[in-house]
Amino acid sequence: MAASSPGPTTVYGRPVTTEGVPNLYQGTSVSPWTPPVPGIDNLGISSVDTFAVPGVGEYTVDFDGYVRVVRSEPTSEEWATAEVYTNLIEMKMVGECEELGRITVTLNPECLSAGQIRTPFDPYAGEGPAAKACRMAVGAIFDMPKLGMKLVNKEPIILTIDDVRQIPPAGSPGKGQIYRMLPLHDSRRLDDAPVAYVTSLRFTMGGYTTQEAMARR
Amino acid sequence: MAASSPGPTTVYGRPVTTEGVPNLYQGTSVSPWTPPVPGIDNLGISSVDTFAVPGVGEYTVDFDGYVRVVRSEPTSEEWATAEVYTNLIEMKMVGECEELGRITVTLNPECLSAGQIRTPFDPYAGEGPAAKACRMAVGAIFDMPKLGMKLVNKEPIILTIDDVRQIPPAGSPGKGQIYRMLPLHDSRRLDDAPVAYVTSLRFTMGGYTTQEAMARR
Repeated sequence: MAASSPGPTTVYGRPVTTEGVPNLYQGTSVSPWTPPVPGIDNLGISSVDTFAVPGVGEYTVDFDGYVRVVRSEPTSEEWATAEVYTNLIEMKMVGECEELGRITVTLNPECLSAGQIRTPFDPYAGEGPAAKACRMAVGAIFDMPKLGMKLVNKEPIILTIDDVRQIPPAGSPGKGQIYRMLPLHDSRRLDDAPVAYVTSLRFTMGGYTTQEAMARR
Repeated sequence: MAASSPGPTTVYGRPVTTEGVPNLYQGTSVSPWTPPVPGIDNLGISSVDTFAVPGVGEYTVDFDGYVRVVRSEPTSEEWATAEVYTNLIEMKMVGECEELGRITVTLNPECLSAGQIRTPFDPYAGEGPAAKACRMAVGAIFDMPKLGMKLVNKEPIILTIDDVRQIPPAGSPGKGQIYRMLPLHDSRRLDDAPVAYVTSLRFTMGGYTTQEAMARR
């Protein structure tokens, strides 16, 4: 461990290497019920988040942007038994509302945002192959220049997608598993009381995007 | 920051000082709808946890033990507006089942397990004072000597108690907010695939306990 860079201090799951893993953009074909070889998925994403600011109000904001997700080698070639590990290596989503102004969401570099795709222990009953469950634990930064604050979460945001029939689950709806409220802290005063909360988060994974579309964000 | 000890690398919430805060044991009286002065609550706890071990089985285990929780100065003397911050500073729970053997659950010293009690943004409707919501993000170690493994979670376990009418919420039922599965890693191979999952966690906060009862654990 001599010359390694410091890296994230908070690790929410299994690290996945990006070394030698190809970037995948628009035009990549996806086969349902088939564990794919490793890749870095460059995908669109949209999200509707509700923020509660104590004593001030609750604001719902539409976000739009992209994510980059690196996927591991599947643990099996068979869909039913395959597990795939993922790291969220880049995110940029932008939204706006009058009261909070423009909000840019990126990854918190102090956290390794990590997840996995596997067959759940409580699958849907039914014929045919079992759909998988996807989960990702995320450390984010919500930059709100109008309020002069960058807000960060100290509990990970757990993003989940159910009924996954292909990897990546492009086009699928997902949810932030927030129980009532997820505290957000001012990045300059991490040990102080939370300044806001996320009370709801619903997202939709987009399809493969282009480098041009990502550069425009 | 010269001579400070290293401390936890993963901080799930707001740190609360234990300096000068008294330990509270059996015999402490609790007033409903009243924010209390700071204290370290020594409380009994019981929990029913279900573990899924991929390819092996699912096991439900009854746990019993104690927790020590330090509470901050409330942010207000009024119940309705008061926020109280908490750190879980000690935990010991023991359970057993035939397949997994004896399991001892303690805190992971690399994590600051932290939480808070506040009025939720979606309170129950009704007359009288509003009940509060309690949440705690926990990093734990599940020591399973029969399997020769200590399992740790890398996403915090979110423990919640609703309908809180007194602090501490002794006697209240609570839940681990686990969406389908919470990965557990072998502490010696943290970067490897999870070896087990918690799929359900239901607990009950006990009342104030005694030093003698804690020492017997």
